[in-house]
Amino acid sequence: MQLGVIGLGRMGGNIVRRLMRAGHECVVYDRDPKPGQALAADGATVAADLKDMVAKLKAPRAIWVMLPAGKITEGTLAELAGLVGAGDVLIDGGNAFWKDDVRRGKELAAKGIHYMDVGTSGGVHGLERGYCLMIGGAKEAFDRLEPIFKVLAPGKGEVEPTRHREGRNPTSEQGYLHCGPTGSGHFVKMVHNGIEYGMMQAFAEGFDLLRNASAKEGLPADYGFDFDVAEIAEVWRRGSVVTSWLLDLTAEALAADEELSAYTGNVSDSGEGRWTVDAAVETATPAEVLTSALFARFRSRVDHTFGEKILSAMRAGFGGHVEPKKQG
Amino acid sequence: MQLGVIGLGRMGGNIVRRLMRAGHECVVYDRDPKPGQALAADGATVAADLKDMVAKLKAPRAIWVMLPAGKITEGTLAELAGLVGAGDVLIDGGNAFWKDDVRRGKELAAKGIHYMDVGTSGGVHGLERGYCLMIGGAKEAFDRLEPIFKVLAPGKGEVEPTRHREGRNPTSEQGYLHCGPTGSGHFVKMVHNGIEYGMMQAFAEGFDLLRNASAKEGLPADYGFDFDVAEIAEVWRRGSVVTSWLLDLTAEALAADEELSAYTGNVSDSGEGRWTVDAAVETATPAEVLTSALFARFRSRVDHTFGEKILSAMRAGFGGHVEPKKQG
Amino acid sequence: MQLGVIGLGRMGGNIVRRLMRAGHECVVYDRDPKPGQALAADGATVAADLKDMVAKLKAPRAIWVMLPAGKITEGTLAELAGLVGAGDVLIDGGNAFWKDDVRRGKELAAKGIHYMDVGTSGGVHGLERGYCLMIGGAKEAFDRLEPIFKVLAPGKGEVEPTRHREGRNPTSEQGYLHCGPTGSGHFVKMVHNGIEYGMMQAFAEGFDLLRNASAKEGLPADYGFDFDVAEIAEVWRRGSVVTSWLLDLTAEALAADEELSAYTGNVSDSGEGRWTVDAAVETATPAEVLTSALFARFRSRVDHTFGEKILSAMRAGFGGHVEPKKQG
Amino acid sequence: MQLGVIGLGRMGGNIVRRLMRAGHECVVYDRDPKPGQALAADGATVAADLKDMVAKLKAPRAIWVMLPAGKITEGTLAELAGLVGAGDVLIDGGNAFWKDDVRRGKELAAKGIHYMDVGTSGGVHGLERGYCLMIGGAKEAFDRLEPIFKVLAPGKGEVEPTRHREGRNPTSEQGYLHCGPTGSGHFVKMVHNGIEYGMMQAFAEGFDLLRNASAKEGLPADYGFDFDVAEIAEVWRRGSVVTSWLLDLTAEALAADEELSAYTGNVSDSGEGRWTVDAAVETATPAEVLTSALFARFRSRVDHTFGEKILSAMRAGFGGHVEPKKQG
Repeated sequence: MQLGVIGLGRMGGNIVRRLMRAGHECVVYDRDPKPGQALAADGATVAADLKDMVAKLKAPRAIWVMLPAGKITEGTLAELAGLVGAGDVLIDGGNAFWKDDVRRGKELAAKGIHYMDVGTSGGVHGLERGYCLMIGGAKEAFDRLEPIFKVLAPGKGEVEPTRHREGRNPTSEQGYLHCGPTGSGHFVKMVHNGIEYGMMQAFAEGFDLLRNASAKEGLPADYGFDFDVAEIAEVWRRGSVVTSWLLDLTAEALAADEELSAYTGNVSDSGEGRWTVDAAVETATPAEVLTSALFARFRSRVDHTFGEKILSAMRAGFGGHVEPKKQG
Repeated sequence: MQLGVIGLGRMGGNIVRRLMRAGHECVVYDRDPKPGQALAADGATVAADLKDMVAKLKAPRAIWVMLPAGKITEGTLAELAGLVGAGDVLIDGGNAFWKDDVRRGKELAAKGIHYMDVGTSGGVHGLERGYCLMIGGAKEAFDRLEPIFKVLAPGKGEVEPTRHREGRNPTSEQGYLHCGPTGSGHFVKMVHNGIEYGMMQAFAEGFDLLRNASAKEGLPADYGFDFDVAEIAEVWRRGSVVTSWLLDLTAEALAADEELSAYTGNVSDSGEGRWTVDAAVETATPAEVLTSALFARFRSRVDHTFGEKILSAMRAGFGGHVEPKKQG
Repeated sequence: MQLGVIGLGRMGGNIVRRLMRAGHECVVYDRDPKPGQALAADGATVAADLKDMVAKLKAPRAIWVMLPAGKITEGTLAELAGLVGAGDVLIDGGNAFWKDDVRRGKELAAKGIHYMDVGTSGGVHGLERGYCLMIGGAKEAFDRLEPIFKVLAPGKGEVEPTRHREGRNPTSEQGYLHCGPTGSGHFVKMVHNGIEYGMMQAFAEGFDLLRNASAKEGLPADYGFDFDVAEIAEVWRRGSVVTSWLLDLTAEALAADEELSAYTGNVSDSGEGRWTVDAAVETATPAEVLTSALFARFRSRVDHTFGEKILSAMRAGFGGHVEPKKQG
Repeated sequence: MQLGVIGLGRMGGNIVRRLMRAGHECVVYDRDPKPGQALAADGATVAADLKDMVAKLKAPRAIWVMLPAGKITEGTLAELAGLVGAGDVLIDGGNAFWKDDVRRGKELAAKGIHYMDVGTSGGVHGLERGYCLMIGGAKEAFDRLEPIFKVLAPGKGEVEPTRHREGRNPTSEQGYLHCGPTGSGHFVKMVHNGIEYGMMQAFAEGFDLLRNASAKEGLPADYGFDFDVAEIAEVWRRGSVVTSWLLDLTAEALAADEELSAYTGNVSDSGEGRWTVDAAVETATPAEVLTSALFARFRSRVDHTFGEKILSAMRAGFGGHVEPKKQG
């Protein structure tokens, strides 16, 4: 079937490629003309602008927006809302805030336009592996676009089937799921990323501990290890309880350089980790681990917090403890 | 080659089976005669007691003790120390505390006996999948027993090879690793379990959040989801960043009963989670996530902490806040 | 001077009393006629409704709203906005969300009305001790109402003066502070409450530890204490580093009943703890302790989280661990 | 009465002074002769070494050791054990690990020597304010030395009496308490310090949040504050819920320099914070806040953890996210 795709970066471009490989027809657009030209060579139809894209698609249309969350997505969807008609479907495949989806869904529904929020996981490997799709919006729109979702998803592949699933929703096993009404797709993707933060931090702390236990001095008796963290990551990939894609990636990075010396240790965070904490607070969910994982990233990006100086000042105040002071 | 195995429970019994399938010869012993009889039917030689086991093994002997950590393992190893001779190898494959290994290693080395601590991961699936082995002790003893380790480990299997590993230690890819001197095997296994705790808690919090977001009342506007957590677990198994064995197990449990109604929610912890926190404290490693995961289990096992009553009492004191009181 | 006060509950009523004791004139209103009658006996003028209150006050008026945060405050302020005139001052002394203040301040400023947000700490003891006031809004309005703030605040009292304060803002020592523009008063109050949560949780965990260390069984060797927590709280009130009002309140509660048996352990939370976490996330502040304190209250209010069952299910899956199951 | 005091640093010296002011007789010793000479001028008897001290004291003797925890205290007590006789009392007033007390207490009891562990809080202000004393050991020894404890403790002072204490232990109100058998004094002091860590971290995070909310850029709309944290600390000292000695000290430090520019932000930790976490683990007490406070100090002392680089490496692996790299 036919799909418009707006935003041809790493994710958007590969989505187009994966769809075209499966025989779907794509009309594409990006501010930057280059990625469109490359895709045209593979068979995509390039639109000159949003209006042109809408013109090039047959009704009922479906347009997938794959842009950075925030103002750019917001503006693009607003412009599209004025161009498409009742019965058309607009899809946000980016990492939007789910409450923005709920608001947009209502605004578009008032015009008879369907809105779908599709959480898309798979990163740079998605072209080959497929994308895990968490989909929110009207069931009717989901059903209409299912051929698209089916192709983008990884499919059953060689993953071992889960027992006890007789009679259950067959799409989950293919890697795509209609999660519920508008907002639910990005909500589930947000929780996915929250869990991802927590898992990453668990590995980070574990490897940190192995390194610190290998210190040459300052440790209690009985220490004195000299762990090869690259080999430990590798051995855990076989038969251990922590086997996971994140471990695979860690093993690869450590195999390339077990000092990871190319990284400063300043760790970015995206909106999804933050929204997860907000949702935990709103739903009274004790989410210690997911929150700690976010805070560890905050802490990684400053030399010192002001709070740490407060601690030293108190220690000097009650105990006369002299913390190391700045020289100068 | 020949191996003595003491302790024929779930883990020990399967280790014997996996070794015999590969042609190794096992002399086995357990207090309870039944599991030994079953293994004898498969070709194992059953020893009447520890002394008999030592007699039935040719020097230099190797004896693998697979018993619950603590007094039983301690007593068994002490008795064996009086029976075996210089050049023999004693192996603790259980979940021992690594500092106990260091102590035992020194005591046995004084008698010329090798001691190896082998962290063994794989649980109930190890017979088929193999065991991930984290091994501490003298290199000489490791080399001598490598044929045993090789067979117990999962091997390369169908796991995708890690890039950039050219020239690295080939055993890690097979699922077994000589981690360093005595104590290092159980130390690495301990950190593995600490990471496992953190990953588990990340999933626990994420699914908890999905459930709480599905509540019918008491939530802010925009909520109103009705998530099918069994389907969400399944869809994440395909192409998402959180793919992992722990997710596979979660998906299976939720497929069988998405309410998990058979479980009370009281969660046990083993020594390894605790020792990980102790090691983090000793090495000044900020291990928020690993520690929170342990504390969440502590909290799960009491109705209320005394601390919670302290909080209510303070609130009543400064604000006249009336917390719900006990009726009686 | 003259002040209108709306909301005559515990806080509002005592504010009126403290003002009248100092010679100020109060016009009061509450939906419930009873508290107003009681205050009338002490000299307050009772208004029949908001319109009547506005009529009874001379311009430029000042009206202090002391109602529960949320819809009631919102509605009252909206109604007042239609009754008062340019140059009048509306004050929210409740625990409002600071972003609501920012919004309201803009709306009222458009009509020439001043809006002040006053974080008010002191609880049930404020009538005698005075209230700590954290004040946001235009400097001009602050200056006009300073006689009111001065009387409500505790004053210097017998608190030991802070060294190095020569030349600093003299109002802080009196217990009231103009914190900045609209919203800043409630922001500072919010952070105050966040810190309060953290301090309370620190005491809660400490006393919990003392109790658990007094258990008769299940502990490692060397334990075997039988701590009298009421006496420990009392001794810490003299000369220790943790001396604080919260400790005083804890000591009092434990002296009355060291089992705190009247409390169930279900601990409520108010908006301010939640907004503190939201603000930490928005400002990228690693606020582990403030957040853990909030999550501990969430956890206190459920028998078990769904997450805990997830943990047990995983443990059964990989290790065959049998967690205690529900009987039934 | 007569007391020997070993270790004449900040704490030990002031203890001697406070005792002599109250008419007690002190025999003192320190490796460094200077502090002893200063105390001799105030009336102390200086001993040439431990043997001389024992000779100068009348039996039954009482000797207070006030040295850094660890080897020095251990060695001094061991030497004293060989010099004193049955019925004498040895006191460790330092910050010892409570399990060391339990061990020492047993060793000394075998020789008929009493051992007392006295947790001593009060810091550099103790000479004037008195010391909060948490005392472990035999009741008989406590009773004999009570005149000493009474003088060292702050006494009732001007602290408001706690209600509901009729008929309770009168010493707590004086600031000293017999907590139980050997080890209990240092255990209670350890928990005190754990709570202290948590309270300090609560303030640290709160002030950090106020500072971050004052940032000139990078914040969401509605921010734009410019908080004067020194004034906020001061205003909270009057009537707020967070009034405490730690707040007083913070206010003083911020009044002197609201940038706290003399401090690097590297925060030390002592054994007591660590032992608190160990005790929480041993007693299955969920102590999130006390532990986070310790971990925040660990984190403050390194530029970056290895774990943070692991996080960046994973992000690059699954998402192609380019974290800021080191230039070089």
